[in-house]
Amino acid sequence: MASNNHFFEGAEKLLEVWFLRTEPGQNLRHIAREDWEEVLKTVRCQIISTIKNDSQDAYLLSESSMFVSDRRFILKTCGTTLLHNALPLMLELAKQKCGFHTVEDIFYSRKNFMRPELQHNMHRSFEEEVIILEKLFQDGAAYCLGRMNGDCWYLYTTNNPDSSKPGQAEPDQTLEILMMDREPEGMKLFPKISIDPAEIAKISGIADLEPGTLIDDFLFEPCGYSMNGLLPDGAYMNIHVTPEKDFSYASFETNVSKKSYADLVKRVLNVFKPGRFVMTLFANMESQMFSALEKGGSGDRAKLTSEVYPGDSTFEDKISDFQRQDWQASKFSNYYLTFCNYAKVKAKPS
Amino acid sequence: MASNNHFFEGAEKLLEVWFLRTEPGQNLRHIAREDWEEVLKTVRCQIISTIKNDSQDAYLLSESSMFVSDRRFILKTCGTTLLHNALPLMLELAKQKCGFHTVEDIFYSRKNFMRPELQHNMHRSFEEEVIILEKLFQDGAAYCLGRMNGDCWYLYTTNNPDSSKPGQAEPDQTLEILMMDREPEGMKLFPKISIDPAEIAKISGIADLEPGTLIDDFLFEPCGYSMNGLLPDGAYMNIHVTPEKDFSYASFETNVSKKSYADLVKRVLNVFKPGRFVMTLFANMESQMFSALEKGGSGDRAKLTSEVYPGDSTFEDKISDFQRQDWQASKFSNYYLTFCNYAKVKAKPS
Repeated sequence: MASNNHFFEGAEKLLEVWFLRTEPGQNLRHIAREDWEEVLKTVRCQIISTIKNDSQDAYLLSESSMFVSDRRFILKTCGTTLLHNALPLMLELAKQKCGFHTVEDIFYSRKNFMRPELQHNMHRSFEEEVIILEKLFQDGAAYCLGRMNGDCWYLYTTNNPDSSKPGQAEPDQTLEILMMDREPEGMKLFPKISIDPAEIAKISGIADLEPGTLIDDFLFEPCGYSMNGLLPDGAYMNIHVTPEKDFSYASFETNVSKKSYADLVKRVLNVFKPGRFVMTLFANMESQMFSALEKGGSGDRAKLTSEVYPGDSTFEDKISDFQRQDWQASKFSNYYLTFCNYAKVKAKPS
Repeated sequence: MASNNHFFEGAEKLLEVWFLRTEPGQNLRHIAREDWEEVLKTVRCQIISTIKNDSQDAYLLSESSMFVSDRRFILKTCGTTLLHNALPLMLELAKQKCGFHTVEDIFYSRKNFMRPELQHNMHRSFEEEVIILEKLFQDGAAYCLGRMNGDCWYLYTTNNPDSSKPGQAEPDQTLEILMMDREPEGMKLFPKISIDPAEIAKISGIADLEPGTLIDDFLFEPCGYSMNGLLPDGAYMNIHVTPEKDFSYASFETNVSKKSYADLVKRVLNVFKPGRFVMTLFANMESQMFSALEKGGSGDRAKLTSEVYPGDSTFEDKISDFQRQDWQASKFSNYYLTFCNYAKVKAKPS
């Protein structure tokens, strides 16, 4: 692809930071919108709109999403944004405005870029990104899940068994589905800027992914679609679509708590019809995914055998038109992670 | 460490290639020693001695080991050897002398080097190594297990679910233990070149790791120890020790079939007394590790719950003076892999 061709990097840089509460009333939501605007200016994106409920504030951005809850900060930005630039000011605001001095957990992750050479220096390679993170955080470990010579997914996260702590752990889980090579019929709906985003959410099936979701969505010109959702149970979701055929991409993310994600994953795949996708699922010990299970002699064993885990045949029976390419499970000090990678089963020559 | 300081890279480059038999009588052991010497010349190492049994020929090399069986080729070389140089000639010999035209499985792996800058270009980075492998093999996937900013282990292996085949799969498993930061008392035995290697094997406990092993070992000047072992059941093992305090390293590898490796791992750790170690365990579906298990509704599930797997509490109870840093499990088209990384529990300040 010549460098003067139109291109947009849909794959997001995703940051999630949990702060440790040391006094009652500490709350990231006390940080004013103007302050967040300053943070986002350094990243080179803006707030488009915002919704909120008892659990969190959801900001729809010109490049993806930001979610702010009491002690959790999520920033997800696509294109050539400078996500790492947000860190110093965000940490400073958390300290000055809310008294948060300690980071309990951090997750920085992204899929490998289609065109890393178009990124600014700080995000051109994961190694560069890690160097910046290591200056700001302790106990961080850097991983590459999946294929270094294919689809892979980078992760920097807290992982120090020495300092692992029950801390203030509350049930937490995050599912991400990063979809590529979307089928033309799956893309059709999104570039039509003439119609209402609400209509797109309805026609595409997005509105029905999780019943009762409060949706804030936006159609970009000339194409592109973003959506923040707040679920009745306090969970969030977000969807971002880059519809252009040559670099089609769609992402889905949620922290909704479920015993099994198979049906939700199936609904998402039905909306976006990818040719291939990467899926990641984080869960801590307190997550319903684990606590719902009968635990055997070894707690660890129960955790990895759960049928809710991608890679298990119970899960894969539900998405039988996809074939698993990779499956990896990781144990970190506070979280379990499953990474997997699926491709559409190729039609057999008749 | 200044570059003029004495340094030796103990971490080995490890290649294992399985050929697909298409005619009876095809056998890599028909390749003459002179031909192997030509292969090894390109790698920059020599044969020191050799032992054999019904299953295989074991060559002790000036830099590690080579094992040749009917359809499996293993080459393991340390230091600044050029392992990848062996590939074209080895593949050509397999074709010309044995009629092997198809590679069934390939594994190329190594730990991250302490000083990659001292390697020749082709082995300076894993990315470079993969480029060379991709020219020679199809369906290869490249992975990085463990921490990119700490101890990690690179793997290039066959992984194409489309072409995954029962093939000629026979039970197979490989355990590797790569040990660093060895305690002074664990290193004491190996630099004393005045004593007999057989005595070292006996005093150190190496001779007792697996009873009945035929041992071929060598003490290098001024220090360093290598050992090839042939087990009564047809399995191999090898041990390589770099004793220098500043870059101490020891590796253990075997394909011996066991229901549980916990006791063997414990014996190995007792001999070498590492401060930290990386362990990898490959096993295919036919391996005793899996077939010994009662299988539940999902075969996959039984496989990952096996108590023989490192990372399980049954395993970890046996090596309780070590703390797990990382645990990752991977499913490939023909093999299951567990990677883990342990460090000595730090003494609590009294």
